[in-house]
Amino acid sequence: MKSIIKNYKDSKKSIGFVPTMGYLHEGHISLIRCAKKENDIVIVSVFVNPIQFGKNEDLDRYPRNIKKDIQLCEKEKVDILFNPLYKEMYPKGFKTYIVVEDLTSTLCGRYRPNHFKGVTTVVAKLFNIVKPDRAYFGKKDYQQLVVIKQMVQDLNMDTQVIGCPIIREKDGVAMSSRNKYLSKEERTSASALNKALLLAKNLFIKGQTDPQVLKKEIQSLIMRYPKIKEIQYIEIVNPKTLKPVKTVKKGDIIALAVFVGETRLIDNIEL
Amino acid sequence: MKSIIKNYKDSKKSIGFVPTMGYLHEGHISLIRCAKKENDIVIVSVFVNPIQFGKNEDLDRYPRNIKKDIQLCEKEKVDILFNPLYKEMYPKGFKTYIVVEDLTSTLCGRYRPNHFKGVTTVVAKLFNIVKPDRAYFGKKDYQQLVVIKQMVQDLNMDTQVIGCPIIREKDGVAMSSRNKYLSKEERTSASALNKALLLAKNLFIKGQTDPQVLKKEIQSLIMRYPKIKEIQYIEIVNPKTLKPVKTVKKGDIIALAVFVGETRLIDNIEL
Repeated sequence: MKSIIKNYKDSKKSIGFVPTMGYLHEGHISLIRCAKKENDIVIVSVFVNPIQFGKNEDLDRYPRNIKKDIQLCEKEKVDILFNPLYKEMYPKGFKTYIVVEDLTSTLCGRYRPNHFKGVTTVVAKLFNIVKPDRAYFGKKDYQQLVVIKQMVQDLNMDTQVIGCPIIREKDGVAMSSRNKYLSKEERTSASALNKALLLAKNLFIKGQTDPQVLKKEIQSLIMRYPKIKEIQYIEIVNPKTLKPVKTVKKGDIIALAVFVGETRLIDNIEL
Repeated sequence: MKSIIKNYKDSKKSIGFVPTMGYLHEGHISLIRCAKKENDIVIVSVFVNPIQFGKNEDLDRYPRNIKKDIQLCEKEKVDILFNPLYKEMYPKGFKTYIVVEDLTSTLCGRYRPNHFKGVTTVVAKLFNIVKPDRAYFGKKDYQQLVVIKQMVQDLNMDTQVIGCPIIREKDGVAMSSRNKYLSKEERTSASALNKALLLAKNLFIKGQTDPQVLKKEIQSLIMRYPKIKEIQYIEIVNPKTLKPVKTVKKGDIIALAVFVGETRLIDNIEL
């Protein structure tokens, strides 16, 4: 892979990179199309990264379909699909991790303590292999985007990190490989997340700036749906620091994580 | 700095890099000369990295003499001396750290808990700025060398990390900027470290393979000198894992840290 990249670099091709865990959907495709527009070469990685999963999380059942991923990448004229093995990425004796402090202790990081350590470590490795000029991440994983931007800046990496809009199903559910886990009924309940975020945004536009009021409204809308098992968090945060705000301002982010049945879904909206 | 490096890379120059904390001595110069031999361009960085010092360590009094460093680099025909400011390396809001687990919990890491986290973080930053083909480190800081090699391998960095022999004063004391702290009497006591390591190596060559016996001999030689305040550790370790060995083999490393007066000195020898 490194020698292929060296050839591209030698011939001054710009490289756009879309790191994924595979099971590609319209969200990923929007990233690929964005990368196609802005770069000579587009590389997609498919790697289900074990070290970003917690012990009781869904690593084993995480959906995989590399054949379909290859077809989609071919259709989108992706130049390279990089699909490394676990033992290539984490050979015996692997010991090095990258930690972005502070930003990773809030929101999802509070409930998934080693998740972002796994994300930043694998992304740094992939960046060092692929050497992208630009890398594309969906805003659905908003905290991930902020954490990766921080890492790139702090470690003086050369890649420009670009966040792309959330792509949603017709019923408003944010595209995610994990939506596959949902039964038909759960899927209906899942649509509550986006509905609640839109409701809160409307209330904010109409003048409501108290985060507690907005959070309560979100909570009560979501809890009305039958398959909601647990709201893990609803937070309204500053888009850069990810710290909860006391008064809501334009540009702040409402982020939430909700268990619909056994499936943990996240979503967010920019105010 | 990055744009200068880009020009070198575009014109296919190989880059040799010697990262230092300045106050350059013969040890550093041997690294520079090694880099000169093997690369088109040689870059030396001088940066006293605060995040690798503990709270009660010698950050404030660490010796500095940038004028002399510049003169030495000019004399050695170093192409670039990179001397960044603290606020350039760690701007407000800096949050990202690199940790090499396991290898950093033994030897010096046991007594300097965040030291190697600071070292790997700054070295990764410098590597991302300078993009060296080869980087040169002295074997005096043997654990540092092993830790950096591990980081480079684990994170798929492109730099080849090269360890160079310890350079010693006439009395056997390993070259170190911290030798400046020593009074004349302390300096005599400091020579015990190398003497003890050589004694142990001789005993090993004559057939002694019990690490406890070798460590005892080292200890009793060192403690005979008046200015020895404390032996922090004496360990005989595998050169790759840095784990203590049960039977000493050729290639193992004896490493030690000793307080001579208030000055902490380290040294090691390869068997």
